[in-house]
Amino acid sequence: MSDEERISKIKAVIGVYPDYPKPGINFRDIFPVLRNAELLEDLVALLVEQIKNQVPDVDVIVGLEARGFLFGPLVAQKLGIGFVPIRKKGKLPGECCQVSYTLEYGTDVFEAQKDSIKPGQKVVIIDDLLATGGTMSAACQLVEKLKGRACLCVVVIELVDLKGSAKFTIPSFSLVQI
Amino acid sequence: MSDEERISKIKAVIGVYPDYPKPGINFRDIFPVLRNAELLEDLVALLVEQIKNQVPDVDVIVGLEARGFLFGPLVAQKLGIGFVPIRKKGKLPGECCQVSYTLEYGTDVFEAQKDSIKPGQKVVIIDDLLATGGTMSAACQLVEKLKGRACLCVVVIELVDLKGSAKFTIPSFSLVQI
Repeated sequence: MSDEERISKIKAVIGVYPDYPKPGINFRDIFPVLRNAELLEDLVALLVEQIKNQVPDVDVIVGLEARGFLFGPLVAQKLGIGFVPIRKKGKLPGECCQVSYTLEYGTDVFEAQKDSIKPGQKVVIIDDLLATGGTMSAACQLVEKLKGRACLCVVVIELVDLKGSAKFTIPSFSLVQI
Repeated sequence: MSDEERISKIKAVIGVYPDYPKPGINFRDIFPVLRNAELLEDLVALLVEQIKNQVPDVDVIVGLEARGFLFGPLVAQKLGIGFVPIRKKGKLPGECCQVSYTLEYGTDVFEAQKDSIKPGQKVVIIDDLLATGGTMSAACQLVEKLKGRACLCVVVIELVDLKGSAKFTIPSFSLVQI
């Protein structure tokens, strides 16, 4: 099967829920992909292939809470490298670095543990969905604050109309564009 | 290396933070295991081995938000089966089943998508930590409500003094006892 065929099979099972969680939003549901072991294997292989091409000497995979946790460790294991989480404020013990980011209403804070990335390490950041790019941009800032080198943002789904990748300066890759 | 040696290497890197998030709690930090690709591979292999022994015909792995998301998909992929999430209320689209559970202060609600488990499917539930057993017990109830058969609870760390496994009736397995 070609990569295009694999991607379109993955795209075909992503659910769409109009007006969820509120009117005007089409919620994209990634979980049906995870129910299917073969599709999930393909998804991970496709992400890993891109990362190997674009950042062959990647040191660390960073995943964003909570849905980035679903894919980050799978990708990190295939690459034989470590996985590091970025979480909402107050959920990680020990010394943490923080960065604030703006939501539709108000702000939120991301944290990562200070010793989780070594200075100079090449980092690929993974999340399930790229929408307006606010959280991904904050994640890039946090990695840089930890003295890591954010090299690539990887997402499964990109809502292209929202132009989220314009919010950050490093390259990005999305498997499925909607 | 023996299983015991692998387990003690995993145990050795689990962090402990006294009085976090509040006085009297020793917070156990699983993330250092995920930073080390080899340890994470061993951890997953050890969990998979137990599941194969205890529930050889398991159909679905269920993982609890958020730290169960770190291990559930890895285990499901090794077994070649699907992964299904249990999340806090309001985070899953579509028709969901709910169950309430008691926290130290007040109650919370878990949800799973109604079509995520088929009637009669054998389910293994995964989380990072078993403490008082409240969330794991709620997860078992939710699986049964979906007409699945909760067969085994698997956690990485069990705080044995809290006797959490007494809260539910199905067998449980923990890799590291503290």
